[in-house]
Amino acid sequence: MSNEAKTPELATGLGRRKFMNSAALAGLAAGLAACTDKSGGGTAAPAAATGATAHAASDAIHLKPGELDSYYGLWSGGHTGDVRVLGLPSGREIHRIPCFNPDALVGWGITNESKKVMGTKPDGSLRYTVADTHHVHASYKDGNYDGRYAWVNDKINSRLARIRLDYFICDHITELPNVQGFHGIFPDKRDPVDEKINHTTRVFCGGEFATPLPNTVGTEDGSKYRSLFSCVDAETMEVRWQALIDGNCDLVATSYDGKLAATNQYNTEMGVHYEDMMSAERDACLFFNVARIEAAVKAGKFKTYGDSKVPVVDGTHEANKDPKTALTAYVSVPKNPHGVNASPDGKYFICAGKLSPTATVIELSRMLDYFEGKLAKTDDAIVAEVELGLGPLHTAFDGRGNAYTTLFLDSQVVKWNVDAAIKFHAGDKSVKYVVDRVDVQYQPGHLNASQSETKAADGKYLAVGCKFSKDRFLPVGPLHPENEQLIDISGDKMQLLADHPVRGEPHDFIIFKRELLSPKQVYALDDFPLAVKDPKDSGVTRNGKKVVVKLTSQAPAFSLREFKLKKGDEVTLILTNLDKVEDLTHGVAIPKYNIQFIVNPLETASVNFVADKPGVFWMYCTNFCHALHLEMRSRMIVEA
Amino acid sequence: MSNEAKTPELATGLGRRKFMNSAALAGLAAGLAACTDKSGGGTAAPAAATGATAHAASDAIHLKPGELDSYYGLWSGGHTGDVRVLGLPSGREIHRIPCFNPDALVGWGITNESKKVMGTKPDGSLRYTVADTHHVHASYKDGNYDGRYAWVNDKINSRLARIRLDYFICDHITELPNVQGFHGIFPDKRDPVDEKINHTTRVFCGGEFATPLPNTVGTEDGSKYRSLFSCVDAETMEVRWQALIDGNCDLVATSYDGKLAATNQYNTEMGVHYEDMMSAERDACLFFNVARIEAAVKAGKFKTYGDSKVPVVDGTHEANKDPKTALTAYVSVPKNPHGVNASPDGKYFICAGKLSPTATVIELSRMLDYFEGKLAKTDDAIVAEVELGLGPLHTAFDGRGNAYTTLFLDSQVVKWNVDAAIKFHAGDKSVKYVVDRVDVQYQPGHLNASQSETKAADGKYLAVGCKFSKDRFLPVGPLHPENEQLIDISGDKMQLLADHPVRGEPHDFIIFKRELLSPKQVYALDDFPLAVKDPKDSGVTRNGKKVVVKLTSQAPAFSLREFKLKKGDEVTLILTNLDKVEDLTHGVAIPKYNIQFIVNPLETASVNFVADKPGVFWMYCTNFCHALHLEMRSRMIVEA
Repeated sequence: MSNEAKTPELATGLGRRKFMNSAALAGLAAGLAACTDKSGGGTAAPAAATGATAHAASDAIHLKPGELDSYYGLWSGGHTGDVRVLGLPSGREIHRIPCFNPDALVGWGITNESKKVMGTKPDGSLRYTVADTHHVHASYKDGNYDGRYAWVNDKINSRLARIRLDYFICDHITELPNVQGFHGIFPDKRDPVDEKINHTTRVFCGGEFATPLPNTVGTEDGSKYRSLFSCVDAETMEVRWQALIDGNCDLVATSYDGKLAATNQYNTEMGVHYEDMMSAERDACLFFNVARIEAAVKAGKFKTYGDSKVPVVDGTHEANKDPKTALTAYVSVPKNPHGVNASPDGKYFICAGKLSPTATVIELSRMLDYFEGKLAKTDDAIVAEVELGLGPLHTAFDGRGNAYTTLFLDSQVVKWNVDAAIKFHAGDKSVKYVVDRVDVQYQPGHLNASQSETKAADGKYLAVGCKFSKDRFLPVGPLHPENEQLIDISGDKMQLLADHPVRGEPHDFIIFKRELLSPKQVYALDDFPLAVKDPKDSGVTRNGKKVVVKLTSQAPAFSLREFKLKKGDEVTLILTNLDKVEDLTHGVAIPKYNIQFIVNPLETASVNFVADKPGVFWMYCTNFCHALHLEMRSRMIVEA
Repeated sequence: MSNEAKTPELATGLGRRKFMNSAALAGLAAGLAACTDKSGGGTAAPAAATGATAHAASDAIHLKPGELDSYYGLWSGGHTGDVRVLGLPSGREIHRIPCFNPDALVGWGITNESKKVMGTKPDGSLRYTVADTHHVHASYKDGNYDGRYAWVNDKINSRLARIRLDYFICDHITELPNVQGFHGIFPDKRDPVDEKINHTTRVFCGGEFATPLPNTVGTEDGSKYRSLFSCVDAETMEVRWQALIDGNCDLVATSYDGKLAATNQYNTEMGVHYEDMMSAERDACLFFNVARIEAAVKAGKFKTYGDSKVPVVDGTHEANKDPKTALTAYVSVPKNPHGVNASPDGKYFICAGKLSPTATVIELSRMLDYFEGKLAKTDDAIVAEVELGLGPLHTAFDGRGNAYTTLFLDSQVVKWNVDAAIKFHAGDKSVKYVVDRVDVQYQPGHLNASQSETKAADGKYLAVGCKFSKDRFLPVGPLHPENEQLIDISGDKMQLLADHPVRGEPHDFIIFKRELLSPKQVYALDDFPLAVKDPKDSGVTRNGKKVVVKLTSQAPAFSLREFKLKKGDEVTLILTNLDKVEDLTHGVAIPKYNIQFIVNPLETASVNFVADKPGVFWMYCTNFCHALHLEMRSRMIVEA
């Protein structure tokens, strides 16, 4: 433990570097690519030291009471298994959408409706209660978000969740068969075949860990392991197809023309120990020709593995040597790349080097040429490979031709010009492609700019997910928050605006204009087949031990003042909130019965339980709803 | 659903009132005490309209990047069952301390260590996974917080959790016997008997719902129901004693001299339907003479109920008619009071009326007189009962003689002078006791001021927990965030500074100076009996089907590259994080095995599982720790 950590003064120069040396660099030395001239093709002077902010920009992010943010942010909730909704530029968290893990506030994982989405074991208990969400991306139309859906992955259990952006709820979860360590996701932006379909219809999912296929035998021989890249239907959420590949998938990107999906890959060595995983000097950015893969599936050119019926095409290097028939193409990029991002002009995918201090720019029109046999080799699609600094991870864009890349080891964001980098790479060493650098606190992972992943990238704000916060917030014991920093990128120089602590660890996020969403704030009664539409329909119906209790809520009362059960009854309790005023949510808890959920305006929810404890149990409203909220109760009387 | 809700302009006057009429007031009309002259003894003009802020004060809360907050806030996490740690005045959430519910980030409810704190069923699964936390209060020394402990209640399952404020972790949970709807809590501030003990040694807990005692028969007859008021030992967390009482307990307050605890009570009518609960014009503030109760326990004057061995004294009205021997005293206060708060000068407890527009000021020295037989009747301890506005709920203090009370129905905070109110009540109707009013958005519940619950109340900031946020943030579907507003109370006029959205619903919180805490940011190896102190101690030990896997983490590797198990093994996995650098946390996930937890620097954690699925499972680090974080894995090979 370093006492230095507690003093803000150390958030500059020496202290920062020292921290990286002792922590982030521990054990890394041997394999790290050398970076003797970090400035590459010339660099601007570093931005003002930490703590210096431009007051005009800073004022803009500090909303007056009652003022609304101008952007939504959708943040992955990390291990919490949810999606967090932020207002930006204020950085305020305005919602959490539970997906993979239970959430006791809304009753996610408690109500029958949510359990159906989450998935249960034969005994009715939840299949999983942990998750590791990384990446959130949303559905497209005409190259911009259309406000229908967002998706988020669970790396631990290889699940993809879909979120409805009208109600801000998760409505579907798909578990990918034969995939372990499902990491990157990205929706397509238009159809690869039918030009008329100019919106998202597929979601691509990268499998990171290679395992035996199917994974039913504890084989130690790593050469037998493989990963799968998956394509999920955006509407049905069924897996359309998978591709068997070499290497481990990290992130995923898709082209604006719908034709290409790609994943950056580390461990093309197929090692099972980390020294092996980083032994090769170059790994890959693996491209998928979506139309050809789907034609192959249609033509029956696929296998299946284990119990899964999902068609799996062969996307390995060996099987795809002829460009004119290839389903996949492996473009080499420097060692253990971490991130692939599509530029908003639709021209390039950019891979960051991680263990190499470089970014690699791949021109998509050349990849299409490659698949038509017009390019000698895949690596000819590389139009730039330039040094940026130590530990480049992810790249965002401002819509003005500039890219912004996080440097994990340097704890910086570097702003660089893509066209200038291409010129520099082509031989003009006089070109200055690095435009600006700014120190961030500390060890940044993902970053994203407002509208960066759309054709409407507007170059206003950049958010940076810093993995370590160290001395940036009041100490709260051994577990530090992460630090999501906000940077103004509207001018030539980046300006650090604010530190926002978050619970670990969000990884990735998107930021878009608030006008793109029109959420509904009250449910419709008919959305719920079990709805109790009138308080007069309340009551207890018995069929042997099976008992159904129907009731409604209207502030400040439940429609049943009391209801009687017998010990051993198998109960289904159905509650409809008949309050239709926006924001008038009720909660329901039954002491000792481990039940808690809420019903939003006109929502219906149900729970099953066995009345195994005799006595009087005050079912009470848990969401302060009215001056008589405390008195809003119903007696559940369980006779022995 | 009201479309009006979406426009910020309606956050004033008519729109606000209309909302209250349709929502908060629905069904309330009949029972509500009339309030024809809300201004009581004269009122100042309302503060500036919503949205108007003083720029000087506003600037102070907007920290520059890297600047630290000057106050800690401990917020109840509501249904999430945790305690949230905020930095103030920025309002940033810097930590969540899981207590009653599982937390998949840290592995709370997953590790053996956390399950031991949370409590399990005979089969090893968690006893409860839902909670409803309301009130957070901290331990005292010399009338100020001493930084040792905080406590929080779970209303659903009648549990009290203790938090260690050195590591910011929950270390003990106690379930109160024979209590349902455990609501208010408050630690004592010094010993009632031994004057030398000038710090917290007890925590008082109010039982809200009356039930049969013991609650094993589904009796419908409410006249047989009773509540218990409980006293928990601050160190052992065992229940010292309980008191049988009339009425339902709401909040709890304690005196600075340690002699008195009190709870405000609604439903002294002992009704089981809400009309009955609000039928009487006055309810009570119930005082406990702590020393006398403990003497009675010592003298064996108690009962026990059911399986519980906790001594229960008789605190009912009927049994305590003689002041000189009374254990309890019922002071009448207007109908359905909601909140009792101790003034920082140590002189008064103040009860807010809720269904009465008044606050009642009770002088503690008179209560001591009552218990000595020097006061004719309990109500003679009331020194003021003044009108404040509609729906008064809770009161905070600035240390300058002013009280701040939330008005739920009026959606206001009213600032009033306690001495002036006493003079007005005594007959001087020329005294203006209302100093200021400010509109808040909307329907405020709890409020608290910086250091308000200590002798060191400093009158700088006031936070207000508003139950409805309605139009104050970007729309996020039917579930709205709550709105924790921050108000500057350093001047004569209150100034609304900021809206902070929070996930529902925090209820209560405390705010104190950062200097009062000195958290530790790295664990000590010896804190954990199972610690694997050297990577060389790693390995797999087998005893029949019982297998222990020991390993360590040091970025970027686990000490075991792989480990082998056999299908059916009963495994205990023990992991020690040997990284000792502050903020260098590792996570551990095992795909398909529903395991995820973290280990902070020098922390040890363990999990049990059955190796029931054969195959290769990549146990991987889930907390981004290093440039080679993705490569930080260990292979768990389960042979069929």
